[in-house]
Amino acid sequence: MTPGVERMGSIDPRLAGARLMLSRVKAVVPVMSAKGGVGKTLVAVLTALHAARMGRRVGLLDLDVTSPSAHIALGVDPRRLQPEERDGVVPPEVAGVRFMTVAFYTWDKPTPLRGHAVDDAIREVLAVTNWGELDLLVVDTPPGLRDEALDTLEYLPGPRVLAVATPSRLARVGVERLLAILEEQGVDRYLVENMATGPGSLEELAERYKARYLGRIRYDPGVEDALGSPEKLLATEMARDTEQIARKLLEQLGL
Amino acid sequence: MTPGVERMGSIDPRLAGARLMLSRVKAVVPVMSAKGGVGKTLVAVLTALHAARMGRRVGLLDLDVTSPSAHIALGVDPRRLQPEERDGVVPPEVAGVRFMTVAFYTWDKPTPLRGHAVDDAIREVLAVTNWGELDLLVVDTPPGLRDEALDTLEYLPGPRVLAVATPSRLARVGVERLLAILEEQGVDRYLVENMATGPGSLEELAERYKARYLGRIRYDPGVEDALGSPEKLLATEMARDTEQIARKLLEQLGL
Repeated sequence: MTPGVERMGSIDPRLAGARLMLSRVKAVVPVMSAKGGVGKTLVAVLTALHAARMGRRVGLLDLDVTSPSAHIALGVDPRRLQPEERDGVVPPEVAGVRFMTVAFYTWDKPTPLRGHAVDDAIREVLAVTNWGELDLLVVDTPPGLRDEALDTLEYLPGPRVLAVATPSRLARVGVERLLAILEEQGVDRYLVENMATGPGSLEELAERYKARYLGRIRYDPGVEDALGSPEKLLATEMARDTEQIARKLLEQLGL
Repeated sequence: MTPGVERMGSIDPRLAGARLMLSRVKAVVPVMSAKGGVGKTLVAVLTALHAARMGRRVGLLDLDVTSPSAHIALGVDPRRLQPEERDGVVPPEVAGVRFMTVAFYTWDKPTPLRGHAVDDAIREVLAVTNWGELDLLVVDTPPGLRDEALDTLEYLPGPRVLAVATPSRLARVGVERLLAILEEQGVDRYLVENMATGPGSLEELAERYKARYLGRIRYDPGVEDALGSPEKLLATEMARDTEQIARKLLEQLGL
């Protein structure tokens, strides 16, 4: 994929700044979905928590400006825990993960989000966050195949996308579209099947679009009660399934 | 709410055309959600099917350009069933419901959707569709609080929004935001709780934002197997719960 800074016409110095801030990150993994409500955020959060537990230096960045919620899953109150400034903004550490979210800046504003404002918030957060050295940066992105999701791909260096999808028939067209776009853009891609109920059914789809299939996560209604506590989240059935996925992902990334 | 045509600056004659096409529709009900994956489409489809069964003249318009799927729920193949032209485009009738979808025009294109293209497709469909006389037009809208969802509100005359939300804590902030925006814009609003598991919990939220709470729809995994057939859909548990909602909605709308 052509680096984003050039493709965007180099008019925004923040994009060059973002590259610099991410220069000591070994692997950037945007977690994407063609549709909301497929559990993208929880997959992102659990993958980050697991990788940290496995001894990697991990960051988690919530760029889902449309509905930032990783902080809710982690039990972080954006009004109390604020990042400190030191050569940029240093993300606070939560359960061993350096955590940054657009919610630190946008919390409680009941405003509609116009296109340019969304893009602006994303560029801003990318430009100011000082990640330091990381093995893995997991990025929760806005759902859907819209500007803000696709632009994110251009702003991040060498993205390796973890696509999350459910086997629901209503969502199938969207998943195909996401994988087709990633293939067309030549972006490395992995597919995780979430809220799986019957036998796995997206594996064949992954194959068709040359995405590496990392496995299934079974539907776990118990996860709702674990929200707000990394420890409780890691004790859910969903976490057990996600642990295998995190392991495979690290292996694939050579970390 | 100020009529959309004026607010948009009257530059697009299609918006005036849309008003004309909708002038013999008694009530326009956009079905909205702050987040995808909450079952918005199925609520829209079932509400339309029920209202038609109850003897009303009903239209269903799928404007969810990001992921049109009402046709999948109804079992309509957009490549085979195409609307005919007669003073505009006349929607084909499916299970007693006049059905129109952006999928008639966008099917199978694996292209990313840029902001203006989305808005353009919505305006086009609104301007060309000849609904004739209707009691109720149910509109499935793009999820989220982005331009295309909010603009839809401005393009439709006298919208009465049916907001769909799940009790999930990760989604709660979004629901509040949606209701706050609707309240601020002075739009009539109803709230339906979908995928309810425990005891109802969004009723108090509806009250706070002066939205009329129409009830809960229990989580029904069986609905997946009923996709593609209006008859099967109407036989699900979800349909039983939605029937009460449709009844209350018609009552509220004086239809």
